[in-house]
Formats: sequence, C-alpha cells, structure tokens
Amino acid sequence: MSRDYPRMAEIEIDPAQIEGYLAALKEQIETAVRLEPGVLALHAIADKENPARVFVFEIYADIDAYKTHLETAHFKKYKSATQNMVKSLKLRDTVPILLRAKPDASRDLS
Amino acid sequence: MSRDYPRMAEIEIDPAQIEGYLAALKEQIETAVRLEPGVLALHAIADKENPARVFVFEIYADIDAYKTHLETAHFKKYKSATQNMVKSLKLRDTVPILLRAKPDASRDLS
Repeated sequence: MSRDYPRMAEIEIDPAQIEGYLAALKEQIETAVRLEPGVLALHAIADKENPARVFVFEIYADIDAYKTHLETAHFKKYKSATQNMVKSLKLRDTVPILLRAKPDASRDLS
Repeated sequence: MSRDYPRMAEIEIDPAQIEGYLAALKEQIETAVRLEPGVLALHAIADKENPARVFVFEIYADIDAYKTHLETAHFKKYKSATQNMVKSLKLRDTVPILLRAKPDASRDLS
C-alpha cells in the first residue's frame, strides 16, 4: 500500500515570462508522470484572477519518490530553465487527509 | 473530452474542532467521488506545520458538475455540520495549466 506523500508548490511567476514558464512546467510534468513510477500525480493550476500565481498539487508514492524526483534530469532542467522566471516559491509540506480520484479520471484530464 | 474544471478551497479550521471537521470532510469526499459522475477528484491535505490549515484540490468534469455538487444532499450536510468549525474559507477560482495522474494512481490513494 502506498504511503501517499502529497505536497503543494505555490509559485509566483514574473508576469512578463508566464508563457515561457508554463512551457517549461508542462514539459516537466509530462515527463515526470510518464517516466517516474513514484510520481502519482502533478496537477498545475493558476489563479483565475492572477495568472502569474501558480499552484502545483503533487502526489508521490512516498517521500523517497519525491527525493528521487528532485534528482532527475527533467526536474533539474526545469529548475535551471525557470530560475529567472520565478519571483517567489513556497514548497509546502503537507499531510494527507483523504486523496480520492475516480479510477478512470486521468483518461479525461487534458 | 472533458473540459476539466479544477478549483482549490483554502480552509482555516477552529483548532479545537479539527477532529470533527476532518470526519465530516472525509465523509463528504468519499460520497461525492463515489456518487457524482462529474466529481473527478477531491484531494484534501493539511499544512504539516499547522494542521488547522486545510486545502482541498478539486477537479470537476466541467463547471456544471461543480454547480451540481453544491446542490447535493451530502455537500449540504457537510456545510451545515461544519459551519461553526470553519474560521475562514477561500474558494479559489482557477484555470488548469496541466492535470496529470497515473492511470492507476487512484487505486493506491488512501
């Protein structure tokens, strides 16, 4: 049984660089969910009123899967590419209360 | 194809009533994901440093599924049961950037 290690990143982007930031973020998410067995979900959303305010809701199988993720080539590429696009970053440590998704939900997710 | 309507609720609980609040929240999440076709995911987490600070990351099939959810008996029961437990509530309107989960991830989610 998975131990389910959720986290949340709260990111403030330079408004002039949103397009470039989102391209790098999407590439990193696609690659991580496809290649890393321990990356269960990465959901990136933006505040509707302030598109420069981005949240990434993350579910790893356990804390080791998160640590592994930080050392991957695709994550390091993302961090390097976006380091001058990010104005502030909060990596929130969290504990799961309840994580529920429909079994086939990921088929529908764009 | 789903239009994917994600949202995020940011909730501050009365620290003396966390246990009762979490019981009501879990029951509501279990019921909504099981019964409502348009509720694709409800992921509840708490800040590790402040367990009274709760986030619910929500994915609905579309905005109508969200509106339907608000009118269900289980959601109204949750709102009524927790109205005196919640100190503050922010319902954040968001836009999806990219939502990605492993096809079988929900089997592992506690």
